[in-house]
Amino acid sequence: MVILGIDPGLATLGYGVIECDGDRRRLIQFGALTTPPREPMPQRLRAIFQGVTQLMEIYHPDDVAFEELFFSKNITTGMAVSMARGVAMVAVVERTPNLYEYTPMQIKQAVTGYGGADKHQVQQMVRLLLGMQEIARPDDAADALAVALTHANSARAKRMFAIR
Amino acid sequence: MVILGIDPGLATLGYGVIECDGDRRRLIQFGALTTPPREPMPQRLRAIFQGVTQLMEIYHPDDVAFEELFFSKNITTGMAVSMARGVAMVAVVERTPNLYEYTPMQIKQAVTGYGGADKHQVQQMVRLLLGMQEIARPDDAADALAVALTHANSARAKRMFAIR
Repeated sequence: MVILGIDPGLATLGYGVIECDGDRRRLIQFGALTTPPREPMPQRLRAIFQGVTQLMEIYHPDDVAFEELFFSKNITTGMAVSMARGVAMVAVVERTPNLYEYTPMQIKQAVTGYGGADKHQVQQMVRLLLGMQEIARPDDAADALAVALTHANSARAKRMFAIR
Repeated sequence: MVILGIDPGLATLGYGVIECDGDRRRLIQFGALTTPPREPMPQRLRAIFQGVTQLMEIYHPDDVAFEELFFSKNITTGMAVSMARGVAMVAVVERTPNLYEYTPMQIKQAVTGYGGADKHQVQQMVRLLLGMQEIARPDDAADALAVALTHANSARAKRMFAIR
């Protein structure tokens, strides 16, 4: 099963693609889509839509896992990220209904076994679990791999118990 | 010139289509796209994307005018509306780059000549300007017609002075 993990954002959207087969996890790709702040908002959103659409077309993921948005203290940033997240979601559901969301706490718990883990611990565990030489960069890509791994661990349980 | 006005929202997205030719304004259509709250968010966003895409395909607007989002006091609502707004914007810019935004204040000023006008006054002026028997319903559709009329009034000036 191929899983696409997405850490949504307007300036930087991280993505990570893994394959999982039972307990095996294999890294396929990771990276980030970026949009320049001086571009008008509609064009930035369009770039995200087209970028995520391309990811769907290149990797044909069976399931897609999003990091759930936290309430931002900065409401303007929160609204910008929400727009980008909505757009990324539509690009996904135009191709598959298999979209899942995980909170940062669930991701930390799933990847490190400890919901209070810090960012660096999560990144190191992602590196180890996927047999990578280096921590994934940028951070958004590492976060996207973490949410993909989280889904890999919970996907079987979800399917068995039909939580959706 | 055909103008599509949009009052973005997740549960209800109002739209209004007018034609303007110099000082003449003609009503073409108005209405609302609605998404049921019990549907999962990605499906609701997809319905908005597809609905706005259909509006673009049916009416082929030259320009599209959005009511600008106000900072919501309820941050959860603000994020939901932001997602819907981002999705609607992408559906538009996939068809045309001519997307404009107006604040509620600009809309009141343009439609009634008074930035402090109340909702009812704006709706009545929309009715009069478009020669309608009744006020447009739902409110979101009346708001969408108001932003379309606002753009009709400012479009010539914008083109002349290339404010964009």
